Amino acid sequence: MPIIDVTLLPGYPPEVERRLASRLAIAARSVIAASAAGTTVVVNHASTYQREGRFLEAGAAHRPVAGELALGFLGAMERRDLDAARQYLAADFVMCFPGAPDMRRLEDLVERSRGRYRSVAKDFDRIDESWTETGAVVYCSGRLRGVWNDGSSFSGIRFIDRFEIADGLIRRQDVWNDIAVQQPEGRVNG
Amino acid sequence: MPIIDVTLLPGYPPEVERRLASRLAIAARSVIAASAAGTTVVVNHASTYQREGRFLEAGAAHRPVAGELALGFLGAMERRDLDAARQYLAADFVMCFPGAPDMRRLEDLVERSRGRYRSVAKDFDRIDESWTETGAVVYCSGRLRGVWNDGSSFSGIRFIDRFEIADGLIRRQDVWNDIAVQQPEGRVNG
Amino acid sequence: MPIIDVTLLPGYPPEVERRLASRLAIAARSVIAASAAGTTVVVNHASTYQREGRFLEAGAAHRPVAGELALGFLGAMERRDLDAARQYLAADFVMCFPGAPDMRRLEDLVERSRGRYRSVAKDFDRIDESWTETGAVVYCSGRLRGVWNDGSSFSGIRFIDRFEIADGLIRRQDVWNDIAVQQPEGRVNG
Amino acid sequence: MPIIDVTLLPGYPPEVERRLASRLAIAARSVIAASAAGTTVVVNHASTYQREGRFLEAGAAHRPVAGELALGFLGAMERRDLDAARQYLAADFVMCFPGAPDMRRLEDLVERSRGRYRSVAKDFDRIDESWTETGAVVYCSGRLRGVWNDGSSFSGIRFIDRFEIADGLIRRQDVWNDIAVQQPEGRVNG
Amino acid sequence: MPIIDVTLLPGYPPEVERRLASRLAIAARSVIAASAAGTTVVVNHASTYQREGRFLEAGAAHRPVAGELALGFLGAMERRDLDAARQYLAADFVMCFPGAPDMRRLEDLVERSRGRYRSVAKDFDRIDESWTETGAVVYCSGRLRGVWNDGSSFSGIRFIDRFEIADGLIRRQDVWNDIAVQQPEGRVNG
Amino acid sequence: MPIIDVTLLPGYPPEVERRLASRLAIAARSVIAASAAGTTVVVNHASTYQREGRFLEAGAAHRPVAGELALGFLGAMERRDLDAARQYLAADFVMCFPGAPDMRRLEDLVERSRGRYRSVAKDFDRIDESWTETGAVVYCSGRLRGVWNDGSSFSGIRFIDRFEIADGLIRRQDVWNDIAVQQPEGRVNG
Repeated sequence: MPIIDVTLLPGYPPEVERRLASRLAIAARSVIAASAAGTTVVVNHASTYQREGRFLEAGAAHRPVAGELALGFLGAMERRDLDAARQYLAADFVMCFPGAPDMRRLEDLVERSRGRYRSVAKDFDRIDESWTETGAVVYCSGRLRGVWNDGSSFSGIRFIDRFEIADGLIRRQDVWNDIAVQQPEGRVNG
Repeated sequence: MPIIDVTLLPGYPPEVERRLASRLAIAARSVIAASAAGTTVVVNHASTYQREGRFLEAGAAHRPVAGELALGFLGAMERRDLDAARQYLAADFVMCFPGAPDMRRLEDLVERSRGRYRSVAKDFDRIDESWTETGAVVYCSGRLRGVWNDGSSFSGIRFIDRFEIADGLIRRQDVWNDIAVQQPEGRVNG
Repeated sequence: MPIIDVTLLPGYPPEVERRLASRLAIAARSVIAASAAGTTVVVNHASTYQREGRFLEAGAAHRPVAGELALGFLGAMERRDLDAARQYLAADFVMCFPGAPDMRRLEDLVERSRGRYRSVAKDFDRIDESWTETGAVVYCSGRLRGVWNDGSSFSGIRFIDRFEIADGLIRRQDVWNDIAVQQPEGRVNG
Repeated sequence: MPIIDVTLLPGYPPEVERRLASRLAIAARSVIAASAAGTTVVVNHASTYQREGRFLEAGAAHRPVAGELALGFLGAMERRDLDAARQYLAADFVMCFPGAPDMRRLEDLVERSRGRYRSVAKDFDRIDESWTETGAVVYCSGRLRGVWNDGSSFSGIRFIDRFEIADGLIRRQDVWNDIAVQQPEGRVNG
Repeated sequence: MPIIDVTLLPGYPPEVERRLASRLAIAARSVIAASAAGTTVVVNHASTYQREGRFLEAGAAHRPVAGELALGFLGAMERRDLDAARQYLAADFVMCFPGAPDMRRLEDLVERSRGRYRSVAKDFDRIDESWTETGAVVYCSGRLRGVWNDGSSFSGIRFIDRFEIADGLIRRQDVWNDIAVQQPEGRVNG
Repeated sequence: MPIIDVTLLPGYPPEVERRLASRLAIAARSVIAASAAGTTVVVNHASTYQREGRFLEAGAAHRPVAGELALGFLGAMERRDLDAARQYLAADFVMCFPGAPDMRRLEDLVERSRGRYRSVAKDFDRIDESWTETGAVVYCSGRLRGVWNDGSSFSGIRFIDRFEIADGLIRRQDVWNDIAVQQPEGRVNG
């Protein structure tokens, strides 16, 4: 218990049906303290489907996995492939970093980081998705490592990124981290 | 489309069935780009339920709303009601704050903050739940306001808290904020 | 075959659920040449029902049986109880009789018939309902009998009435009959 | 609400499944005052179907659209293609026209109309189907236009035809009209 | 897998619904090599049920557990309570014992056994039910023990009884045993 | 009533789905006194199936018909094809015959029967299956016929065989019969 029976039109890739089933099981178990063994999800295919007096010919489109979008964007930024990174962004994309004004252009972020470190990379501890009606909010947290501008290296600096994703595009990135706490010299925004 | 049909044993409060239905709809729509109008969830009651050769007498227990637990804990901490706050915590609760070692006792956190500010309050912008098989991860983000130890006030300092909640108890709190970036004098951990 | 499974919220009178089941069976059998024995209809009650992000507290209202409305109106007219008859009529009710202009007031009809016969009654052979999205069209056909103004009686005159019914009120009545064909003296509109 | 779930064996043409779904939705909404948006019909295919201890290999045959049969017959009659018209008729077909004895042969109808008009055509205002367990009753109403035997033309004469259709064949036609009311000279049966 | 969903009218005792669910699970697992954990049975209650154009007011009667009937009869016979034993028997009951003509009266059986042993009792090893469309066949097998007419005791003699049960009454009992094989003196029918 | 709806993954042979449906109908009717006409079984195919957090790719294996295994074994024994007969047996197969010790080797049975009759064949009156969670118990009963060692023939001797079958192999055979009762000279075990 519970049994969750989903009726879809045929045409979704098997991977999408499985993602759907997995998320429904998790959603159900977030409310009901049922065991995994006691949670069954079945996806069935309708032959004909009428609602609002109209017949649906095929299922609605499916959404990409939001966590994969966030990681794809972060990977492109880490290797400074701004063209690739921009593919992930909505037209009204905005970034909010510690101690910085809101930024809309990736170039501004790159410029700003130049004053801080030669390179930085993210080791992810946790990636969580919070699902919404239009997609997801993705949270990535872990530790930063890299090289300061003075050539010294750093690691283990806590960070968390929050991404708002809608219709397969990143609309907002909020970043928090402990760079200001950890950085050797003076106060610098993260 | 889709139609999600859930079979439960009777006995859950209506509020729980509604929460279940809402989350299933959101989970489905995080995968399939269906409209709200096209997403139907029905909860049905089984009369008799057998699995694994055993009959279930009643549905499994339901879980509290994780976001409410997180806010309840934060509210108790804000008014320094440690006894109330402790009711929300699992035995192995651990806190991780910027620039601080992991803490397990609320008293340690209170002691630590004494060196920083006289009072602090949180204004929440966003509360997101990421559901898991055993409960949820809750993210609360927004702005801090309060009074520094020198009597000056502050506000608008960005923060984010991450809570791991299992079986109705908070097991872990991770905090990031911009206190070190914003604080007027010297570098102080947030 | 087929099996028709209907999910409703509880609260409908048993008579309404049975009417629903009967009509679904007839609708199915008007398309598929299934036997009555092979046509099963089951009405199930949902415990919780969400669509378009909203929870329905109760089922939608049910409609009256259109055929009964038509007969009720005709009965009131036959006994010249215009007040009772008016209860059946929508504000924009219109009547169309043979050889007459469209009428909107029952008094006009009564007046007009005075020139034709002292009394008239309808013996119904067939009452058919054609269901629509807002109610039904009702057809009543049979034979008229009564007394002409000259005191002679008549019977067996074919008639048919068509009623458009929406939201439980009659919006239009169209009448055809053979009075002009059958009437002894001269041509008179029916 | 409601959700109507129909289980069929596979093999019906998509058009038939859609007709079935549409009629079920209309039948449901003739009883329950549900909106079109709130009325969902799903047709599912069974893999194996047993009833009365026997397995059904395929679904039952489907029925033609009764309204199309009626119009096909009327069209053939209008162009005086009696051979085509006869294809629509059951062996025990009978016609009932104003002021005429019951007729069983199309030739008798043609002969009778020769005494009335040179040509006649029907403009349809409304076609309604009333479904029954064995098929449908079809009502067609509208206006007649044509040319009298004296060469004068007529139009706008109200008519209604009622067809009883079973097993894809017309078993009975009843006709009412205002010809006797409208015809210029003397009393003539319609 | 599989999920077995049963729709019943309400009114059956919980014990009957559970028996039904258990037997359906066993029947399914006799065909499909599914685990008990993977076999789910759900009994749902219909609110309204129409088949063959008629509405069922309540579920059909339920049948007694055939194995309990067989054991009840054998217990009554063992304590020679013929009146109680007769309550279990259909009007056309017949018994078939080794080396004996078919018997219809319990008295005949008692008389016959008098020539063999002073007392006999059955220890059951296995009781199996084979379900049929009208009830069940029950097989009871195990060992006989008792006292011969010469006062010597016996035990461990294999037996098997077969009962045909329909409509809650035993219609036929067939008995096989090893008495003839085991009995000390001469050949005696069992 | 009842309606039994079974959800399976696709891939089972039609014969297996039909056997499943038939047995479910019989199991249901062994509990509920429903008519065959009122017992509907539908097998539906799931597109995606998740339980215990895992996706099933295909349905579980299906089991052979236990009664056919028992008859296959008995047929091979009757024609003394021990190699064929052994194919039906589990490794721990054991036979229990009247007046004989438990046997494990078919050769021992053949040897033992040599002292009794030249040939024996079974005419089956009834074959019943009792289903279990791991397979079935099969009961075959009827009459023996054959030729004694002295050349005289016999017939009509009652017998019953009980087979325990698991995972498609016979694990145990128990035999009862009236040979000791019927055999002309002296007492011989059956």
